[in-house]
Amino acid sequence: MQAEIIAVGTEILLGQITNTNSTHIAQGLAELGIDSYYQTVVGDNPARLARVIEIAAQRNDLVILSGGLGPTKDDLTKQTLAKYLNVPLVEDAAAMTVINNYFKTTGKSMTANNRIQALYPNGATPLTNHNGMAVGAFYQSPDSADFLLLPGPPREMTKMFDSEAKPKLQAVYGKQAQIYSRVLRFFGIGESKLVTELQTLINDQQAVTIAPYAKTNEVTLRLSAQADSKQAAQVALDVVDEQIMTKVGTYFYGYGDDNSLAKVVVESLIARNLSITAAESLTAGEFQSTIGSVPGVSAIFPGGFVTYANAAKHQLVNVPQTTIDQAGVVSEATAIAMADGARAQLQTAIALSFTGVAGPDDLEGQPAGTVWIGLAYRKQPTIGRLYHFAGDRQKVRERSVMAGLDLLRRALAAEQPTEK
Amino acid sequence: MQAEIIAVGTEILLGQITNTNSTHIAQGLAELGIDSYYQTVVGDNPARLARVIEIAAQRNDLVILSGGLGPTKDDLTKQTLAKYLNVPLVEDAAAMTVINNYFKTTGKSMTANNRIQALYPNGATPLTNHNGMAVGAFYQSPDSADFLLLPGPPREMTKMFDSEAKPKLQAVYGKQAQIYSRVLRFFGIGESKLVTELQTLINDQQAVTIAPYAKTNEVTLRLSAQADSKQAAQVALDVVDEQIMTKVGTYFYGYGDDNSLAKVVVESLIARNLSITAAESLTAGEFQSTIGSVPGVSAIFPGGFVTYANAAKHQLVNVPQTTIDQAGVVSEATAIAMADGARAQLQTAIALSFTGVAGPDDLEGQPAGTVWIGLAYRKQPTIGRLYHFAGDRQKVRERSVMAGLDLLRRALAAEQPTEK
Repeated sequence: MQAEIIAVGTEILLGQITNTNSTHIAQGLAELGIDSYYQTVVGDNPARLARVIEIAAQRNDLVILSGGLGPTKDDLTKQTLAKYLNVPLVEDAAAMTVINNYFKTTGKSMTANNRIQALYPNGATPLTNHNGMAVGAFYQSPDSADFLLLPGPPREMTKMFDSEAKPKLQAVYGKQAQIYSRVLRFFGIGESKLVTELQTLINDQQAVTIAPYAKTNEVTLRLSAQADSKQAAQVALDVVDEQIMTKVGTYFYGYGDDNSLAKVVVESLIARNLSITAAESLTAGEFQSTIGSVPGVSAIFPGGFVTYANAAKHQLVNVPQTTIDQAGVVSEATAIAMADGARAQLQTAIALSFTGVAGPDDLEGQPAGTVWIGLAYRKQPTIGRLYHFAGDRQKVRERSVMAGLDLLRRALAAEQPTEK
Repeated sequence: MQAEIIAVGTEILLGQITNTNSTHIAQGLAELGIDSYYQTVVGDNPARLARVIEIAAQRNDLVILSGGLGPTKDDLTKQTLAKYLNVPLVEDAAAMTVINNYFKTTGKSMTANNRIQALYPNGATPLTNHNGMAVGAFYQSPDSADFLLLPGPPREMTKMFDSEAKPKLQAVYGKQAQIYSRVLRFFGIGESKLVTELQTLINDQQAVTIAPYAKTNEVTLRLSAQADSKQAAQVALDVVDEQIMTKVGTYFYGYGDDNSLAKVVVESLIARNLSITAAESLTAGEFQSTIGSVPGVSAIFPGGFVTYANAAKHQLVNVPQTTIDQAGVVSEATAIAMADGARAQLQTAIALSFTGVAGPDDLEGQPAGTVWIGLAYRKQPTIGRLYHFAGDRQKVRERSVMAGLDLLRRALAAEQPTEK
């Protein structure tokens, strides 16, 4: 079972709008276990539309068209499809009633064009448009591909696809076996290294597929299993999950599409009631802003310091001037003094500090990307870690924040066993 | 001249990411006056990719491929294209140097896969990747379509397309009359309101086209003029620019694609040698982090405070407990006290403060989105401004930061005439 999504609209070709319709439909197909190997965008041009319909019908079992069902002279999708299928367009009485009522209620005058919105290819099942006037259609063909016709405006399309089309697709094409996924998130390992480490597993993938994605500052793996039940899928996923953990578990920090290193760390701090503060130089508040993005953080985060200038490091978190003079502002000693000073000020369980060279220029003879992160963690001796980050000013700052979160995550994880 | 955009990536077909790359490239083609009648998406599958390349090459003069240049075994775009073109892949020495340096700097271990990222089809012009390692390519073919190879990650793709590919496309396919553009940036007005205000100008556009784009928290207008010389274009652009300013000039803050409200504000502060600090509650450091993103900010930004808890507001920036008790923590009085207190601590010319309800929950009976911003500006009386922002926690925090920058920009602008 294989489907192609065709979005019809010149405004997409001109880059005036982003094609979110295809994303939504693609998600739905994935959930239904229907393969989709191609997506196409074509303008409001009947000749070119006819050509892409023909190509799509040849290489698929189902072709989903969105856009071009409206009342303007540019809207020619169903006319073009009807011609391809060699069937006439017929009027959907229910849709026509909606259109008539709209013009009666609003007192606006109806044009002949508006009637067109109630038409659909003869032989198809009309699909109700809950958020607009143009009717959709699902056409099952004995000798060509099947066709699904959806409106273009995302509000109309998503509602019709989710509540009208999807149940029909499920009933007609749905297999017993559905696809179940699990997302694993990793920090501190690049996509290529991760893939190299997991090469054997990836090469051997059978019941469970493993798809790596490089995201900003992290990598995720999506494990997908086709199974008859959720339980059967979980068992298959668990096996591969465990194999992956054996190899790269040290970089793993959490599950799920809607997760982040900051979320995992803050939720762990909240769960263990450990308060935190920070003193930030090159990151200028970005670490605190990042943990501040997690709801509920106020329970463990009273506030902190941005100590950009040397004088502020001294004034706000009591870094001794002699430390800066002797060790330099980008140094282990300064990082440790910043973390200790911030923690002493706000009496928290934990403090992080960031001092380094964001760039573009060098500082004290140290190149951009040189960063010391300090961690004052409970009763443990305060440590300083040296990093060398590649990239521009923004990258260096982002990577510093992520490295700080990771340092803290590892400290939290290391402590956990003794607490049990 | 006709081009097709092909996005390569199974994650698009699965609906895991939205195909914003094609939108960006489509905008660029529209600006260059290159027609685009089709867009295609195909997965990381060499056989299907080869088929769509063939179809696209037959119906276009230029085929633009994005995605699949990375180091994993899924990344097969250039291998597939090279096979189609019947040319070998060769190594770009400059790209290989970048890759080697990255692994040298970070101390990470390089895998064989990483070398693949420096390869491009023989005969093509390699294109520098400023935000990643995978080299791009522009291949001009005497007997087939031309090909442009771009990386998939949007940060890498947009930079390479804008700064490396576009000038080449312009040079090779550009008409005599070139297109000159000017980008105007607005804050504090929505896209539909901006379009309504400029309706007459937009309807009458002739020599100069006006294209509005809604971006995150701001709107831009791209004015484009086709002209034989830069000078002639400037004259035409100036006329429309002035007409726009008469209508919506109060929301205008700067020119250029590579600009931001933070950049304009920080550069103005540096130019006038005005130092700044901040005390942030709901934004938790995001304002300071945002100004910290502008190179050179250290000249006027010593540091500041994240005062999340009430106790921290009192301890760090001396907000009287009575003020919080009587007026509430989300109040004009508290915002003013925070700004005054922060400024007094660090002896700056200016201080901003942010106190409000980021959400998702209410605070002190005030709904999420309620925000007071304080501004202590030189010798002027310190003010507090009340805002009601829509959106989730992140949106409310972002919009607070933008509103703070705008408040400061307007204070700076209001003062300017008397200083001249």
